[in-house]
Amino acid sequence: MIMNESLKYLKKKLPILEWSLDYNVDKGLADLVAGVTAGLTLIPQSLAYASLAGLEPQYGLYSSLCGGITYTVFGTVPELNIAPTALLSLLTYSYTHDLSYDSHTGATLLTFLAGLLELLCGLLHLGFLVDFVSTPVVAGFTSAGAITIATAQVKNLLGLKFTAESFIDVWKQVAMHISEVKLYDALLGSSCCVFLLLMRKLKDCGEPPLEDHHEQSKESVNGCKKFIWFCSVSRNALVVISSAIMVYALNLHDIKPFSVTAHVPPGWPNISSPPFEAFSVHQNRTLHVFDMMKELGSGIFVVPFIAILGNVAIAKAFSQGKIVDASQEMIAVGLCNIFGSFFGSYPVNASFSRAAVSNASGVKTPLAGVYTGAMVILAFTFLTPYFTYIPKTTLSAVIICAVLFMVEVAITKMIWKINKIDLIPFLLTLISCLLLGIETGILIGVTVDIVMLLYSIARPKVLFEKIQISQDKVYLKVTPTSSIFFPSAQYLRENILKTNIEEGTNTNIIVLDCHRITRLDFTGGKCLGDLVKDLKKKGKFVIFLLPLKNMENTIRVTCDPTIPIVHSDSEVKSLLEGKIEANKFLHGFFKSNLEEVTTNL
Amino acid sequence: MIMNESLKYLKKKLPILEWSLDYNVDKGLADLVAGVTAGLTLIPQSLAYASLAGLEPQYGLYSSLCGGITYTVFGTVPELNIAPTALLSLLTYSYTHDLSYDSHTGATLLTFLAGLLELLCGLLHLGFLVDFVSTPVVAGFTSAGAITIATAQVKNLLGLKFTAESFIDVWKQVAMHISEVKLYDALLGSSCCVFLLLMRKLKDCGEPPLEDHHEQSKESVNGCKKFIWFCSVSRNALVVISSAIMVYALNLHDIKPFSVTAHVPPGWPNISSPPFEAFSVHQNRTLHVFDMMKELGSGIFVVPFIAILGNVAIAKAFSQGKIVDASQEMIAVGLCNIFGSFFGSYPVNASFSRAAVSNASGVKTPLAGVYTGAMVILAFTFLTPYFTYIPKTTLSAVIICAVLFMVEVAITKMIWKINKIDLIPFLLTLISCLLLGIETGILIGVTVDIVMLLYSIARPKVLFEKIQISQDKVYLKVTPTSSIFFPSAQYLRENILKTNIEEGTNTNIIVLDCHRITRLDFTGGKCLGDLVKDLKKKGKFVIFLLPLKNMENTIRVTCDPTIPIVHSDSEVKSLLEGKIEANKFLHGFFKSNLEEVTTNL
Repeated sequence: MIMNESLKYLKKKLPILEWSLDYNVDKGLADLVAGVTAGLTLIPQSLAYASLAGLEPQYGLYSSLCGGITYTVFGTVPELNIAPTALLSLLTYSYTHDLSYDSHTGATLLTFLAGLLELLCGLLHLGFLVDFVSTPVVAGFTSAGAITIATAQVKNLLGLKFTAESFIDVWKQVAMHISEVKLYDALLGSSCCVFLLLMRKLKDCGEPPLEDHHEQSKESVNGCKKFIWFCSVSRNALVVISSAIMVYALNLHDIKPFSVTAHVPPGWPNISSPPFEAFSVHQNRTLHVFDMMKELGSGIFVVPFIAILGNVAIAKAFSQGKIVDASQEMIAVGLCNIFGSFFGSYPVNASFSRAAVSNASGVKTPLAGVYTGAMVILAFTFLTPYFTYIPKTTLSAVIICAVLFMVEVAITKMIWKINKIDLIPFLLTLISCLLLGIETGILIGVTVDIVMLLYSIARPKVLFEKIQISQDKVYLKVTPTSSIFFPSAQYLRENILKTNIEEGTNTNIIVLDCHRITRLDFTGGKCLGDLVKDLKKKGKFVIFLLPLKNMENTIRVTCDPTIPIVHSDSEVKSLLEGKIEANKFLHGFFKSNLEEVTTNL
Repeated sequence: MIMNESLKYLKKKLPILEWSLDYNVDKGLADLVAGVTAGLTLIPQSLAYASLAGLEPQYGLYSSLCGGITYTVFGTVPELNIAPTALLSLLTYSYTHDLSYDSHTGATLLTFLAGLLELLCGLLHLGFLVDFVSTPVVAGFTSAGAITIATAQVKNLLGLKFTAESFIDVWKQVAMHISEVKLYDALLGSSCCVFLLLMRKLKDCGEPPLEDHHEQSKESVNGCKKFIWFCSVSRNALVVISSAIMVYALNLHDIKPFSVTAHVPPGWPNISSPPFEAFSVHQNRTLHVFDMMKELGSGIFVVPFIAILGNVAIAKAFSQGKIVDASQEMIAVGLCNIFGSFFGSYPVNASFSRAAVSNASGVKTPLAGVYTGAMVILAFTFLTPYFTYIPKTTLSAVIICAVLFMVEVAITKMIWKINKIDLIPFLLTLISCLLLGIETGILIGVTVDIVMLLYSIARPKVLFEKIQISQDKVYLKVTPTSSIFFPSAQYLRENILKTNIEEGTNTNIIVLDCHRITRLDFTGGKCLGDLVKDLKKKGKFVIFLLPLKNMENTIRVTCDPTIPIVHSDSEVKSLLEGKIEANKFLHGFFKSNLEEVTTNL
């Protein structure tokens, strides 16, 4: 029994033990194809994202090494591939580019710390925190991130050289330096963009329908279509390779019209513990880990939070109706980052585009990550000499065409259609992320969202209805439409009292319908008591209809131990018509009070 | 018409225009008695509270001058008397005792700024902010304030001399200095306490019942009882006067065993604009208003917030079932403070004990405040020479016996009885107010409260019920018990999906009962859409039961435009039995899907 429980727990924490049991050749082949395809997307992306993070290109490859392999052991969703992503690269840049010590050292420490926090959140089941970031806020900051990233790449795309920080700054500088545009860079960059967008479009024609591909037999997909689809999903690799070949060919004739990628040192990364000391050039002294952390600032919390947010969302999107174990996902991503930090990785998480490619390639288990990892190893052991032929503008085109579709136009339309008020957090997040930075933007978005939520909780609707039970007997039915918590308690009390004064002129009977009140906190209970006392002073008689069992106790304590509580509309009627034995509900004072009131009806 | 509206508005903003119309001799007499009685409570209190605020005793009198008179014009609840209170005195002390400039100057500026903010909150109708402080948190900080104040007075009560800041500090110092206790001070102080507590007890016998006194005719109250009651409510004045007479008598024989109150300069306060400049001794320079405000720090927000909180709560407690115009109350208190700051007042608001005295004295209109004001003027013009005979220990006894009953024992019992979980914010607030100060304590209490509220919103209950419609047809009815907002959306989706997998094995029909969902935000709508897609993938057929009109649109957009929506249990039955024309609900895909599913039932 205990053995069984332990085994179950172990399988939960090491999902590889579960799926490896019935692994077979078919699955192996599917994973191989999917892993290699994802690798073709990942390698050019990782070079590009590294420069986005302000790091040398090889660090993009190093960062892609551990994720897939670690996730194979600890991960649960086969589609996920843990490696550099656009948003985390942007965040890494913003937290590490102005450190007083080496920014790659900072990025690696950040990876380690973020991993630790992710692991901790997973172990403590703190995943519910993610629920407090609403879809509009996520859409807002993702869109803002995409716009910021694309903006930053316009510089490389046009071959311009300047330094600019913010979104507005970049566009200002572009306008100022527009005369210095390098024609060849700009031409190549824009043709790459056009090519990438067309190839992306092509996929839609060739791709097997994403939703049903598990059920659909592979044979039914036409071979030609499949080839087109494969070209489309490896379009990043295609455009990078062909640009590199062109540059190589031109180089042979000593023509060098393009800015190219810096030299990438070949071979494996140094394997060492994450850096807990660093030399500060500004301060001319060795910093200890706490000094280093101080400079990383809120990044230590923001980076893992965004990583978890992204990861859980993508995992849920690809879970195909299965339950995602969010805690296990956090543990897996945490370990990917912790192990990665030993290989000089910068913060990584899952990317939606790579997950979509894996899914479309028919991935079966997380083992695909091992094949992707192998591709990455191939890249940094054999391909590095050729990386110096990759034009910068091509990598910028890759980034721009990847992030362009992160701008959430569809969701904006949907929000407009179904709940316009949610455009407030969306637009606020978007605009403040663009103008004040991702971190401040998210904080503003979440705060506004929670304030709006609290306000709507504080001001619930109350329904008032006059009900005629006989020709001359009328009662006022008052129905609060939601639970009563402290922010709404006083409001409800006053609202009911006020309407009562206005509407209740021809009746002295108030029936408080509680069937929609699921919870009642102490403040709510006390206010109900005060309300009943207020109404009593005005000569009204209050009946509670359908409160939950645990609420009955509260009502008796705060209002009156003898207050009548009934459980159906007909009981109300019987009570008011005196059919139910009065003693069942009423003792002492209330009995006479009711008689007095009913005779006045 | 416009004239009428303007007049109505003017009467709302200047309530004196309303009640002065039918003012008469009877009311005038009642107000006179009540005003004088309240004055007898107020004068000794104000001397004592001033020392609590770290100011000279005359400032207590000056602070009592403006409140009553201003409130007569702008106030709405006759019982309220705006003057120094224990809690605000404590706050004033904690924000002004370590300023780099004169603490009375700081207190006066604080009064002006607090008044401005209160006025602003009233004009902008920001009173709803008060709703976010729950009853347990209010009880927690009031109790902690009372304990802190009483603790601080133990020093004077025993005639000890030391400086100590925090609650724990004071008790430590008392223990250390216990051998230095001045016997006579301690004896007098404790006998005053015993006298005051006994007199208070007496009141309960003599007092006309508080609730009904408006209805009850005065004549029915026995004259002797009335005299006892009057002695009881003016017990503070009695104890102070008799102590002073004793000290005076002993002085005549040159016996001076007690520490007495410092000399109080006679006559009116200086009337001048609130101080916008001050000389800093530490910095040896003149500070401007912004420097002064910087030193007051968060007090500028905390003091008016607590003042509003207290005032609105007391106003509601004494409103006798009438609606309290919270905004007008804020305006009134704001103006009391603003005008007061011209007379050297420190921050003031209403006190529960004075309101209770006024109520029991049969107050009719806010004009009583003018009589109380007149008493105060009498005090500082004629009585000041006699104030030096008042022993400090007597004033401490007055304070201790006043605040002792602010420790909310009754509410604690009530929370225990009806909602034990609310003891968490109560105890947390109480303890952190005692250990970390009122301000931090309230902040912690409110934060914990809101986090608990958000958590309970994020994790609503869902009811699952299997319903048999015929021998072989069963459906699963799923009822979320509250509105769906972003914090609960994902949880609900997963909870329903999970239970469905566990419970829904013998049925493919899910009926989502929406009758308790009052609101659905964008995130909630999207998650419902995802849920329906998840369930569809598992071969389930989803029917929506009783959604609100505006929710129907959302459901059609996010789930499926053809999803069946019905409005009663019987419609569900008819739909599943195929009695209702299928086309009414189903088109295309869904029609065949339903047929497929129902044949498998």
